[in-house]
Amino acid sequence: MELRLTSDEVVKIKEGEDIYTALKRAGIYLTASCGGKGACGKCRVRIIDGKTEIKSYGKLTHIERESNIVLACQTLPNGDLLIEIPKESRLVVGDKIAVARTKDLAGYLKSYGVGINPTVKRLPLNLPPATITDNISDLDRLRRALDEQGIKGMRFSHEFVAELADALRRADWNMELVYVEGQGIPAEAIFLTPLEGCNRRYGIAVDIGTTTVVVYLVNLVNGEVVDIGSTYNSQMRHGDDVITRIVHATEGGGLNELQEAVVKDINTIVDSLMERHDIKSCEVDAATVSGNTTMSHIFWGLDPGSIREEPYIPTLNFFPMWRGGTARLSINPQSPVYTVPCVASYVGGDIVAGVLATKMHRNPEVALFMDIGTNGEIAIGNNEWLMTIKSATSGLR
Amino acid sequence: MELRLTSDEVVKIKEGEDIYTALKRAGIYLTASCGGKGACGKCRVRIIDGKTEIKSYGKLTHIERESNIVLACQTLPNGDLLIEIPKESRLVVGDKIAVARTKDLAGYLKSYGVGINPTVKRLPLNLPPATITDNISDLDRLRRALDEQGIKGMRFSHEFVAELADALRRADWNMELVYVEGQGIPAEAIFLTPLEGCNRRYGIAVDIGTTTVVVYLVNLVNGEVVDIGSTYNSQMRHGDDVITRIVHATEGGGLNELQEAVVKDINTIVDSLMERHDIKSCEVDAATVSGNTTMSHIFWGLDPGSIREEPYIPTLNFFPMWRGGTARLSINPQSPVYTVPCVASYVGGDIVAGVLATKMHRNPEVALFMDIGTNGEIAIGNNEWLMTIKSATSGLR
Repeated sequence: MELRLTSDEVVKIKEGEDIYTALKRAGIYLTASCGGKGACGKCRVRIIDGKTEIKSYGKLTHIERESNIVLACQTLPNGDLLIEIPKESRLVVGDKIAVARTKDLAGYLKSYGVGINPTVKRLPLNLPPATITDNISDLDRLRRALDEQGIKGMRFSHEFVAELADALRRADWNMELVYVEGQGIPAEAIFLTPLEGCNRRYGIAVDIGTTTVVVYLVNLVNGEVVDIGSTYNSQMRHGDDVITRIVHATEGGGLNELQEAVVKDINTIVDSLMERHDIKSCEVDAATVSGNTTMSHIFWGLDPGSIREEPYIPTLNFFPMWRGGTARLSINPQSPVYTVPCVASYVGGDIVAGVLATKMHRNPEVALFMDIGTNGEIAIGNNEWLMTIKSATSGLR
Repeated sequence: MELRLTSDEVVKIKEGEDIYTALKRAGIYLTASCGGKGACGKCRVRIIDGKTEIKSYGKLTHIERESNIVLACQTLPNGDLLIEIPKESRLVVGDKIAVARTKDLAGYLKSYGVGINPTVKRLPLNLPPATITDNISDLDRLRRALDEQGIKGMRFSHEFVAELADALRRADWNMELVYVEGQGIPAEAIFLTPLEGCNRRYGIAVDIGTTTVVVYLVNLVNGEVVDIGSTYNSQMRHGDDVITRIVHATEGGGLNELQEAVVKDINTIVDSLMERHDIKSCEVDAATVSGNTTMSHIFWGLDPGSIREEPYIPTLNFFPMWRGGTARLSINPQSPVYTVPCVASYVGGDIVAGVLATKMHRNPEVALFMDIGTNGEIAIGNNEWLMTIKSATSGLR
């Protein structure tokens, strides 16, 4: 059977399949906070021609029903249909959204009394070439040079060592070692690069909102915010609030689908930023990600199911430092990815980042912080105490 | 064109292809120390019928030539051929070889004055279930229990955390944590297992010889050597000494081919040992590998090319602790794999293991140690000094 649209698109629809599902399969997404369960009443379409079987009218008014408006997720075809999708029902993702450009980052860090000190370090190394009288192994040669710089106990991954012999000889023993080291983070080698190679240094800061995804590209040498990109979070195709996303994640294959959606959104932005500024992916070697607890779990592919049910337990609030490759980001796969910690199941890294940015936790004055997005978080307090509350704001908007 | 064998096998042979290559493609391997370069004179076959083009007779004697003996790698067909492969030319790999059963391991360790203390630890944990008043995250709950046991700063991989929520609930908060910790090795979680699950503990010790591969299966609880398996190293298909293997490794795709061959040999033995003793692969959670420097490099997929050319530099002598999964072993993928360190490019982990096993480095008497395999190593010394020398022994055998 066929579903024809007034916009001239034609979609196949199966016996017993609802209009919402058929459209989704064809890449035409309707807004649906509830993910297609007949509860939110948002996936309205108008039947122009054809017979249907309607399971429920949900929240539709009498006037709407008389105008042949139905809920796409509750309507099955009894033959070919011609339908109209009202503009407000159609979900357009991938649109660019407006973002205010943040103030100078270096200035901001200065106001905290800290300098620019990225977790990823670069160390120029000029090794003496191997000779018959100085014939220690390649890794021992590298370790000896690190010892001389006072750097001890560095970890070397198999990927790093597998490239080592070739990297040293290609660079003629002159190169930069890129490695991770920070408070509580043991030193670990990332990669070797020739001195004239990929040696500019960029990082990305990612804000994963339930509705929008924003990426800041930062120059890690001088702290300049180079550019900002943003898009709608394509997870919206599977419901537009946190609870619906959790439900979708716990259904077969849903978690992977949601993770892929948001990672693809981030990569689309990052790729266009790198292209615009002529930056290689190996030069983006650090990332910071903030989002609410559910968004952070989904980003890392962790099942958020237990966040939804009493006693509301997330898998973690403090995320270990993992890698860009693990997260499948299109930056340097060895880059450390720092996830802003979450306070509780419904108070996430987004509000932690907000509190940190306003510095209200450093001042004696009591301040009120409000983050009004798909959900609203409010934090109140000062440098001695802080309280937070969270609620869905969809009704308010 | 066809190559018929007196053993009734029939193999396709291409225009311009030599007999050695055609047989190899069909899975029929000839002994060839030089890897098919006409130098070793071992791949002798007898031409019974058909015309050939002979590039070189190499080391063949007049009598052999008159008996229609040719070198398979130097002989191209001029039409269909009927050949005979003498028994001594045919390489049979995968055969079981005889291995002496080692003495009691626990007794051996006792003679060193050390107990059984595997790097992989198991810790039974009985966590209080999450409640609305004790609702910290899963990872924090695990960390709190580790703190109480005095275990701090454990690393948690993404794989481990991704399984965490499910593993805790499946085990009803009662399980064993399996983790790695040792001298200079920071604690790292490996996996969680229900108390009645996979909680026997085995390790394997692998001896990668240029000619033979031997695997010892060890019970890590009581130190018993459970069983031993062995096979010929199938890398022999690509030449039977170290130098020929290095040459093959540096030719396109050769390194991967050699690595796959030896890993497959090890896995074939390990799989049959596990099946024979009804052991699950998750229960084999530690491995130790020894081999000469080239064999160790190939096992880890590291290019051994620079070992062969002056100044004879290996990528490493001391191997970091990597994982069973990285090595593609069919044991627990998170298991630590310890590689016995090598002294130099031509004095490898095999002789280090031999010296350690004899304890000659602990005694004041000067002792001589000889390891006569495809290559011969001799070590001489006592607890104050040690010298080694290595040479090919093929001529001697």
